[in-house]
Amino acid sequence: MNELIQTGIIARKTARKLAQITTAQKNDFLLLLAERLKNDSQRILDANQDDINNGREAGLNDALIDRLLLNQSRLDGIAKDLMELSQMPDPIGSMIEEKTLANGILARRIRVPLGVMAVIYEARPNVTVDISALGIKSGNAVILRGGKETLASNKALVEIIHECLISTNIPAEAVQFIDDPDRELVHQLVKLDKYVDILIPRGGNTLQEFCKQHATMQVMTGGIGICHLFVDESADLERAVEVIHNAKVQRPTVCNALDTLLVHQSVAAEFLPMVAARLISSGVVLKCDPTTQDFLAIDSQAGIQSIEEGDFDREWLSLVLGIKVVVFVGEALDHIHLHSSQHSDGILTNNPENAQRFKSEVDSAVVYVNASTRFTDGAQLGLGGEVAVSTQKLHARGPIGLEGLTTYKWILEGDYTVRN
Amino acid sequence: MNELIQTGIIARKTARKLAQITTAQKNDFLLLLAERLKNDSQRILDANQDDINNGREAGLNDALIDRLLLNQSRLDGIAKDLMELSQMPDPIGSMIEEKTLANGILARRIRVPLGVMAVIYEARPNVTVDISALGIKSGNAVILRGGKETLASNKALVEIIHECLISTNIPAEAVQFIDDPDRELVHQLVKLDKYVDILIPRGGNTLQEFCKQHATMQVMTGGIGICHLFVDESADLERAVEVIHNAKVQRPTVCNALDTLLVHQSVAAEFLPMVAARLISSGVVLKCDPTTQDFLAIDSQAGIQSIEEGDFDREWLSLVLGIKVVVFVGEALDHIHLHSSQHSDGILTNNPENAQRFKSEVDSAVVYVNASTRFTDGAQLGLGGEVAVSTQKLHARGPIGLEGLTTYKWILEGDYTVRN
Repeated sequence: MNELIQTGIIARKTARKLAQITTAQKNDFLLLLAERLKNDSQRILDANQDDINNGREAGLNDALIDRLLLNQSRLDGIAKDLMELSQMPDPIGSMIEEKTLANGILARRIRVPLGVMAVIYEARPNVTVDISALGIKSGNAVILRGGKETLASNKALVEIIHECLISTNIPAEAVQFIDDPDRELVHQLVKLDKYVDILIPRGGNTLQEFCKQHATMQVMTGGIGICHLFVDESADLERAVEVIHNAKVQRPTVCNALDTLLVHQSVAAEFLPMVAARLISSGVVLKCDPTTQDFLAIDSQAGIQSIEEGDFDREWLSLVLGIKVVVFVGEALDHIHLHSSQHSDGILTNNPENAQRFKSEVDSAVVYVNASTRFTDGAQLGLGGEVAVSTQKLHARGPIGLEGLTTYKWILEGDYTVRN
Repeated sequence: MNELIQTGIIARKTARKLAQITTAQKNDFLLLLAERLKNDSQRILDANQDDINNGREAGLNDALIDRLLLNQSRLDGIAKDLMELSQMPDPIGSMIEEKTLANGILARRIRVPLGVMAVIYEARPNVTVDISALGIKSGNAVILRGGKETLASNKALVEIIHECLISTNIPAEAVQFIDDPDRELVHQLVKLDKYVDILIPRGGNTLQEFCKQHATMQVMTGGIGICHLFVDESADLERAVEVIHNAKVQRPTVCNALDTLLVHQSVAAEFLPMVAARLISSGVVLKCDPTTQDFLAIDSQAGIQSIEEGDFDREWLSLVLGIKVVVFVGEALDHIHLHSSQHSDGILTNNPENAQRFKSEVDSAVVYVNASTRFTDGAQLGLGGEVAVSTQKLHARGPIGLEGLTTYKWILEGDYTVRN
């Protein structure tokens, strides 16, 4: 009846074993996998080429093709992250807290794996490696459900992951991949609370909402970044242009790319033409509020469009940027409170008071002062990679790395101690 | 249409203010409230007497009457917890982590309040104080929905809480109490995700399941303790009797009271009559598996019943105890894996290997060696009280105290830093 129950049973059973494997085994696995990605990647690249060809035939847009693309340089990047992860301390078994209570009980809080994590993701084959690596290092069993657009790449990657697991004496069942693209399996997966401790949907709003509504286990949602930068009147305007260009253009298809630029009116006349010229020359389409359009009308026309209803609530994931002129810092904060997905928002300013106000009032996972939003990333923050970027407030906020895949248990040891 | 929207809007607005109040204000509030509970409690005790009288008329059983009872001694206990809470460090604003990234960005992880917490609870007026106190100290706005059985007590307590808030210059709206017993309001409350960051249902399985299914915000569930103690063959039997007696009898109506006793077969003949005599003399009814009954048949009849189907999955909350004889340590572990609610489970043993096996294999929030299960309690563990005991794995596990009511944000400060 439910085809996935067997997968769940295997994951639960394997999770018990994984809680006991040594740190050396985990790191050996990571280093071996890195080695394979760097020097034995032809199988992966061939499979990825098949996915790319199929994607182009199916008419996927450039953003989606970029998401599913693997090349040697990206594999080298993934390998580098794996090597860094192998250098990180093993969180499992570490003591979070230890104290002797007044009654003599020794109370300790010890970090343990969550158990079984299931991840549903879309067209990004690197996620297959990231999740497997973080899952193994944190002692969790993993059930992967990737997008059908990267099925060939994922199969090749999982084959290699299994080979590396077996070579390092870790059960291959630690990573299970659902390779049947039937959507019905997703419906089954989100009901497996008996076997799955957490569900992580990595994908668009529809997937996240589906999981929130239908999943019977706890869900970690996130990854939808409607990201803002506010250019304050005191900002260094030339440098601000470069930060905005980086946040928008460097990798526009990811969640930490910039979506909306807010500009203080007192620098708008000088700043907007500067930033518009730089962005338009990189192919960015600017969706401008009326005031912005007034400021830009003389300088340029191509690449400038009017903002439309709902645009400030969109995650662009492409070379499009919303722009709005604001009258006060407070208006920038209000706009962010109203439209931000609480992922990554920041201020560019040389005024410490306004910086402080942003740091204290913006209620987002990562709040920036004078930096590109592109740093909301587990590897960049030294978390050993990330399985997702949480926009929830419970458990983990922002990039979910190694620690975010653990929980703890209290261990209380007494001398036949009773409560008075 | 939705009567609670105004409550939500007020809570959200107040939460912004609460994030900024000083530690001194918070502690002044706690100490003033403690003072009032100790020395100015007549209004509360009178109101509570009304609730008790109504409860008896409505035919509530003794367990429920005990749950809703307040007397000066219990108020003094609550006041003591408040004073202890005032001594605890203020978690808000504390730095969890600080590092300078290779690119020069200063990255800090700062503890912040969750925002707005809503708590639905049943007949326990002390919860009104506990939640309000922990909420204020952790900078959160609180929406309370107590059981109708304690409406009078809760109203009196909330009045005093409001007086203490006002006296210490904290907005009284920090604690909002829904005093209309209409059940429809609960249905509205669980849909207020726009204003409420977390929902904590404190009550039975029906309430928890209702919230899990219908709430649109994140839910912290827990508080259902099907708790086990296993008496190993090496246990000090006389002392084990006292631990079991304490775990079952000291306060049978709470979640950390013992529900099932597992006894190693090689000590069953000696131990079962000892523990049965001690428990039966305190009015405990023993629900015994057939083997246990065989061992007890000669010694005693009164207070001994046969275990029935489903009994090992019940939280008794009264003077009833399930008992089962097991052949191996592994059988005790299997029973716990199958029947525990992952709240509080332990072993009584003088064998370090078996203790180690329990500590590593039992996947519960609190694992005990040679102690009563009654210590699963935020105040006992020095957490500043508790808003609930989580049996989830995400965020907080076991008693949820001050830290469990916080989250963090990352603050990244650069020098117009871009990502390469």
